[in-house]
Amino acid sequence: MTQLKNDLFIKACRREPVERTPVWIMRQAGRYLPEYRAIRDKYDFITMCKTPELAAEVTIQPVDIIGVDAAIIFSDILVIPEAMGMKLEMLESKGPKLYNPIRNIEHVKKLNPVDPYKELKYVLDAVVLTKKELNGKVPLIGFAGAPWTLMTYMVEGGGSKNFSEIKKFIYNQPVAAHSLLNLLADITADYLSAIIESGANAVQIFDTWGGILSPKDFEEFSLQYIIKVISKIKRNTEPVIIFAKGVHYKMMELAQCGADVIGLDWTMNITEVRSLIGNKAALQGNLDPTILYCSEDKIRSETISVLESFGKGSGHIFNLGHGILPDVKPDNLRFLVDTVKKESVRFH
Amino acid sequence: MTQLKNDLFIKACRREPVERTPVWIMRQAGRYLPEYRAIRDKYDFITMCKTPELAAEVTIQPVDIIGVDAAIIFSDILVIPEAMGMKLEMLESKGPKLYNPIRNIEHVKKLNPVDPYKELKYVLDAVVLTKKELNGKVPLIGFAGAPWTLMTYMVEGGGSKNFSEIKKFIYNQPVAAHSLLNLLADITADYLSAIIESGANAVQIFDTWGGILSPKDFEEFSLQYIIKVISKIKRNTEPVIIFAKGVHYKMMELAQCGADVIGLDWTMNITEVRSLIGNKAALQGNLDPTILYCSEDKIRSETISVLESFGKGSGHIFNLGHGILPDVKPDNLRFLVDTVKKESVRFH
Repeated sequence: MTQLKNDLFIKACRREPVERTPVWIMRQAGRYLPEYRAIRDKYDFITMCKTPELAAEVTIQPVDIIGVDAAIIFSDILVIPEAMGMKLEMLESKGPKLYNPIRNIEHVKKLNPVDPYKELKYVLDAVVLTKKELNGKVPLIGFAGAPWTLMTYMVEGGGSKNFSEIKKFIYNQPVAAHSLLNLLADITADYLSAIIESGANAVQIFDTWGGILSPKDFEEFSLQYIIKVISKIKRNTEPVIIFAKGVHYKMMELAQCGADVIGLDWTMNITEVRSLIGNKAALQGNLDPTILYCSEDKIRSETISVLESFGKGSGHIFNLGHGILPDVKPDNLRFLVDTVKKESVRFH
Repeated sequence: MTQLKNDLFIKACRREPVERTPVWIMRQAGRYLPEYRAIRDKYDFITMCKTPELAAEVTIQPVDIIGVDAAIIFSDILVIPEAMGMKLEMLESKGPKLYNPIRNIEHVKKLNPVDPYKELKYVLDAVVLTKKELNGKVPLIGFAGAPWTLMTYMVEGGGSKNFSEIKKFIYNQPVAAHSLLNLLADITADYLSAIIESGANAVQIFDTWGGILSPKDFEEFSLQYIIKVISKIKRNTEPVIIFAKGVHYKMMELAQCGADVIGLDWTMNITEVRSLIGNKAALQGNLDPTILYCSEDKIRSETISVLESFGKGSGHIFNLGHGILPDVKPDNLRFLVDTVKKESVRFH
């Protein structure tokens, strides 16, 4: 295995001392980069996911162009439902669409089993190729959706405003819901294990829709399956990050779910969360992504504000509180990353 | 002034003893009711708002059909931007659209001044007529959007996924933003004062988009203007309710903003909020609106769970954590309301 030349991100995940705060950005391989768009103009999103050479290329772009301390494999959380047999379409303006959404136990039973080394081999191949091309420059992060978030897309058939269908499903067909969640937890654990086996240095679980649940429902329909996934991932010392957007009400439970790092959206106060959970987990985030629309002065002051909010010591990975937006200027992101690198030294 | 026959809602707002918990439902005059749809099929949304007879009729429908303890005047928060000169369209499927969105100080300067007794007289007329027709049966609630939420619609030109335009506006044109927020705060205070003057027994301020702001930005761009509105409302003992969706991080500040009642969305734990704020404010909410898709057994158990979560004593107004969804069965809402009436007695 190639030695990592920059292991700041991994060390911070483990709350080991670092000389400065590492930084990477959710959706850093994305449309805000002209170099990404040049490729995306030639291939559709799913083709890019399924072609390891293309996936590796866009994965590495922000490492070279922006200077982030970690790469995250270019892919999508919905590759799992697609591997289970659902037809997936990614519409740039409208978001993802899954055809024939799941609405009952019969639909659940018709889903295909998934062996990540077969149906999702293209992701593993992309991980292997990216690792090779990175040549230890920075760590590579793999990722998956939390079972709850995957099920939400599978039942809604895409994004949603009111999440009526998924709520009807869990309330009125709890047996089918738990059956699907268990299935997704098993597949996701196998998938993330395979991604680590293929060379990823860390994995992140995205629970994008966790925050649409009441605290009680989050425990029943999301948290227990996150715990199941994490407990079943085969790994050595590779850190696991859980990012449950909007789940302000279960910080302590997330700190104890088996993950090494909790991702925080921009409504959270890092100082408060750090003081609440103590040394149970490292923290990642949480700058408002729209700060990247601002002047350099404002980007600098807001970046310093996040660094100060965490305070001194290790256990902080700088990131946005959600994915970078497609109309951000790459120069602004580069400025942000440079600012973190420069300003965070005094906190270590 | 007609004596209220049912003043449970008003008493609970003031945390005075009541024999049971009062209940009303956000968007209770709405599409889930066939009686509402029968009128809506004949008139467009804005015509309904602007025709006092129609507004009064649909305002009173849920009082008669569902048995709620308060009526809320049928209207929309966007009547204010419309009165300021913006062209408004309500598209049933897509939500509201405001033409020629505000993007700079010149746009702000071109907005018309608003005298609620002139440009918004139709709302006041609807309040007067509804009060007359209610004849003291239950209290009537008036409402407005918080300045932040109104500005968000005015800058985005409607709803939004990423709220990019409003964030660019506040970060890059803070002078224009604060100028517009001040203007909106003044108009909103005048408007709510006029609604109370016309007979409303309470008013609610909806900060639907408060939760898209970071805690610091919420203080700067929303909270201070909510405080300004409330401090300027001319009222006697009419309670003010503030409902700031997603603003889990500023409960204590909301309890001290001058409002009598804080509305809670369904991600909040009422027990925790009550224990945090003590007797600074009454609480309203917070059942997940999608529970109304469930069986009666589940509706009953979840209703009791909310009542238990608040616990014994006055100062709780039962409501959903957000507006009722259009595909809910009216029978389910009636069952919910009956359950609150029956099961809440033992908490008083």
